[in-house]
Amino acid sequence: MASNLRLTVSCPDRKGLISALSSFISMHDGNILSADQYVSDGGTFFMRLEIEGDGFGLDRDEFAGAFVPLARRHGMDWHVSHTDTPKKMAILVSRYDHCLADLLWRWDAGELGAEIPLVVSNHPDLAPRAESHGVPFHHLPVTGETKAEQESRVLDLLFENEVDVVVLARYMQILTPKFVDAYRGRLINIHHSFLPAFAGADPYRRAHERGVKTIGATAHYVSEELDAGPIIHQDVAHVSHRDTVGDLVRVGREVERRVLARAVRLHLEDRILVDGDRTVVFE
Amino acid sequence: MASNLRLTVSCPDRKGLISALSSFISMHDGNILSADQYVSDGGTFFMRLEIEGDGFGLDRDEFAGAFVPLARRHGMDWHVSHTDTPKKMAILVSRYDHCLADLLWRWDAGELGAEIPLVVSNHPDLAPRAESHGVPFHHLPVTGETKAEQESRVLDLLFENEVDVVVLARYMQILTPKFVDAYRGRLINIHHSFLPAFAGADPYRRAHERGVKTIGATAHYVSEELDAGPIIHQDVAHVSHRDTVGDLVRVGREVERRVLARAVRLHLEDRILVDGDRTVVFE
Amino acid sequence: MASNLRLTVSCPDRKGLISALSSFISMHDGNILSADQYVSDGGTFFMRLEIEGDGFGLDRDEFAGAFVPLARRHGMDWHVSHTDTPKKMAILVSRYDHCLADLLWRWDAGELGAEIPLVVSNHPDLAPRAESHGVPFHHLPVTGETKAEQESRVLDLLFENEVDVVVLARYMQILTPKFVDAYRGRLINIHHSFLPAFAGADPYRRAHERGVKTIGATAHYVSEELDAGPIIHQDVAHVSHRDTVGDLVRVGREVERRVLARAVRLHLEDRILVDGDRTVVFE
Amino acid sequence: MASNLRLTVSCPDRKGLISALSSFISMHDGNILSADQYVSDGGTFFMRLEIEGDGFGLDRDEFAGAFVPLARRHGMDWHVSHTDTPKKMAILVSRYDHCLADLLWRWDAGELGAEIPLVVSNHPDLAPRAESHGVPFHHLPVTGETKAEQESRVLDLLFENEVDVVVLARYMQILTPKFVDAYRGRLINIHHSFLPAFAGADPYRRAHERGVKTIGATAHYVSEELDAGPIIHQDVAHVSHRDTVGDLVRVGREVERRVLARAVRLHLEDRILVDGDRTVVFE
Repeated sequence: MASNLRLTVSCPDRKGLISALSSFISMHDGNILSADQYVSDGGTFFMRLEIEGDGFGLDRDEFAGAFVPLARRHGMDWHVSHTDTPKKMAILVSRYDHCLADLLWRWDAGELGAEIPLVVSNHPDLAPRAESHGVPFHHLPVTGETKAEQESRVLDLLFENEVDVVVLARYMQILTPKFVDAYRGRLINIHHSFLPAFAGADPYRRAHERGVKTIGATAHYVSEELDAGPIIHQDVAHVSHRDTVGDLVRVGREVERRVLARAVRLHLEDRILVDGDRTVVFE
Repeated sequence: MASNLRLTVSCPDRKGLISALSSFISMHDGNILSADQYVSDGGTFFMRLEIEGDGFGLDRDEFAGAFVPLARRHGMDWHVSHTDTPKKMAILVSRYDHCLADLLWRWDAGELGAEIPLVVSNHPDLAPRAESHGVPFHHLPVTGETKAEQESRVLDLLFENEVDVVVLARYMQILTPKFVDAYRGRLINIHHSFLPAFAGADPYRRAHERGVKTIGATAHYVSEELDAGPIIHQDVAHVSHRDTVGDLVRVGREVERRVLARAVRLHLEDRILVDGDRTVVFE
Repeated sequence: MASNLRLTVSCPDRKGLISALSSFISMHDGNILSADQYVSDGGTFFMRLEIEGDGFGLDRDEFAGAFVPLARRHGMDWHVSHTDTPKKMAILVSRYDHCLADLLWRWDAGELGAEIPLVVSNHPDLAPRAESHGVPFHHLPVTGETKAEQESRVLDLLFENEVDVVVLARYMQILTPKFVDAYRGRLINIHHSFLPAFAGADPYRRAHERGVKTIGATAHYVSEELDAGPIIHQDVAHVSHRDTVGDLVRVGREVERRVLARAVRLHLEDRILVDGDRTVVFE
Repeated sequence: MASNLRLTVSCPDRKGLISALSSFISMHDGNILSADQYVSDGGTFFMRLEIEGDGFGLDRDEFAGAFVPLARRHGMDWHVSHTDTPKKMAILVSRYDHCLADLLWRWDAGELGAEIPLVVSNHPDLAPRAESHGVPFHHLPVTGETKAEQESRVLDLLFENEVDVVVLARYMQILTPKFVDAYRGRLINIHHSFLPAFAGADPYRRAHERGVKTIGATAHYVSEELDAGPIIHQDVAHVSHRDTVGDLVRVGREVERRVLARAVRLHLEDRILVDGDRTVVFE
């Protein structure tokens, strides 16, 4: 069975774009399995097409050559991926294991169509967890003085492993603009509050002090500004006056891992397109 | 400003359908505002297109003539509606007013792009409610003996008012197959349980006896079999041992009106296509 | 049938408080219908008791006299209410009608055990809505210059009507500390965001700009600081990139009215005790 | 630090029960940390008390002797547990690992105050999972002919390990009345539908065929009748026409593990009292 294709496109909106794209596929005997489309208020056209590989007239090496003239004519940003070539995903963690454990369990269960060539951490604690799933674990400790150097070594590891997407699964280090830039739009963080509430440190403690009745979690792409990148997914849980900070942490873990897992799956299936500070999510 | 068009299509799936449809629009200088598409497991293709009226080369009278050859070639079921021609919606009620009150409030608030030419009831109680919104109220009482006759009179009223869609907002009468057939796919009921649990009478009492921890509501198209038609939308609320049957009724009212309102809005915006016993809902 | 009593108590925690309270009830032949209790981290004891009026040995006039010695001994803040004496609730509105319409509908449906002696607004628009439910409507317009004077007139109206609780059902005026103080712990506001996110003006527009994937609403007691008072209840709804600011407003209305109605019902049933900047909610 | 006590009581309702219970505690210098109470429609009184061990005048061996006269006078069913004596919980599984993995992760994270002396399965597959958490795994295969014998061996293992509570974490065998009776009220099952909908086999396939828009999971105590025992907790997730049976399974796993974990935690904290076919859950 041939690999299917996922084509994502964004460009200035104009008449005839769906027709141009679908006709291009048809012309090459392609069968469109699913199509999602959206035009933003700002006049940008977004489309995601899933094309059956079986019977499609363009093979992997020919696609770009055939598609570029059309893309150029309409000023398209575009990306194509192949379902038989799973993305390479690295997971960065510190000491909390709930998001890592959940991602690895889902990966084993076949929920995530990805390879996980490595887990990187600034602490040694989670090595057994990664290794029990057969994933190499790299311990790169960091101090105030070695921050730049440690981050370079992390980046080197990611490059060596040809990593496509980096997941910060409660990685408690702020990344430099250089790192953010290297993985812009491919660097997913989970923040343990419903942003923009409680950006920054210690959101559960602050939520408890404020006496909120819902807590939440936010998965977002990382940008230069802390906890301010494009939001991918959010969810909440109800809490009550009886819940201590510790209860919020426990309940929150549940929300965090669920929200992060969904964001990761959406990214791996090429369902997220970035629209400035916002995301277009085709579910 | 010209009226926009909403085109819904279903037909056996084959290659090139999106291209055929979008090229037809392009050929007539149409701008596609939104496109949703789905292929069922059973191999049926479904599509909904919203086309900008401004600049579109086919006016209202010309569309069918131009589209029929394409539709015929692919064996399409299709329907076109125009955003400046709101659907005519009748609401059938008995004595409970929460769904009626909610629909009428939303209508006043401009949430529902519909006309409401009449409310029909087998009881006189809700006349003031309808009339306070300026909607004519018809009281057609029914007994075991007059059931067939009363229903005929209801149907006559609907036909006279050229009603497009009928909403059973807690109408406590079972309709005959004749009625169901006349408004198949355009007859929406709200059932006060998460179907298929507690189909039939008195679901809240039965839910309480069973000791469930969630109650729900289901909006569905009516079919010949009681509470078994295609489901449009469902939602639930959490309840506890403290909740009496009366509490379930109160909490349930909230869910019922929310679920019904959403189903009605989806129908009015031509976002629901029926796929046998199931629905395709393009949100 | 005699009226039941609701007794709420808070005081410094110590051993024997539940015993002291329940024995006091027992000693006077009272039957406790429900009891809820909580001790905060800060060491404050909170309790709510519902006592059957039938057979209780203390009548309305005797209760305080009998209870005061116990209350004094433990330094209790306490409040007793009688289920046959509904609270008097005033609703303040501006132009948005969804919260008002919902509260009035629930009131008519018997969900709220309260009297509504008046609706007050700085705009005339919602007079017909209030009057269709038989509730007197007072139009007290306000300008920058007349703010203090208008507020005094509102307070006069509330005092004349012996109002127990004031609901700001999207009342678009900031109240002075004098007003807040007069109804501290009895002044409920609905804010159209999940606080502390998007406190202040225009939360839906700001939520849209930020690209959040959930929006929410918060019911809280009003304090001197804008949108910072003790939170009573919060809920959220999921939104997507497709939702315009107008969609957020529509979806948000649904959440606002639900959250406000719940907070109002909890308050009317004496289920909320204020604990500094937080609330204890016995559901 | 002394161990706290949790006392649960049910008996026919009458005046003075809270007073009698709390005075008993006070008389022995006990401090009540939390108290929950409920009277059912059927006139049964339920109470849960958490008592500080520090300073309490009755030690573990003395409690029963001191309490029995009071319990007898009111016809109380009662149970006391001590927070420093965690319950012994056995987990029975077949081949699906999501519920097991989740429970073991939570156990490691300290969310569950229990010991897990063993995991039992009719298949060998999940041995590594249990053993990676240091929990002994017993493989007891079963066929139609050996069913009674295998179940006896399971029961023997549970008795040998002094197991207090048995969790069926997707154990795909129907238990005999003998087993059910041995662990009545201490035998928790997770069913992968919102009961009473889709009781029995293959709920996701049937849910897909019915075209429901929500799927759910139900944690309940096991009774003789299949999927009909007292419900502890339920939750749902929204699904759409796009979701295949496989998607329902994936989404459902998420709901199942969340619902089961919550039910288990509630049971371990003595927060559930059985009221005939229903449960009283003090959260």
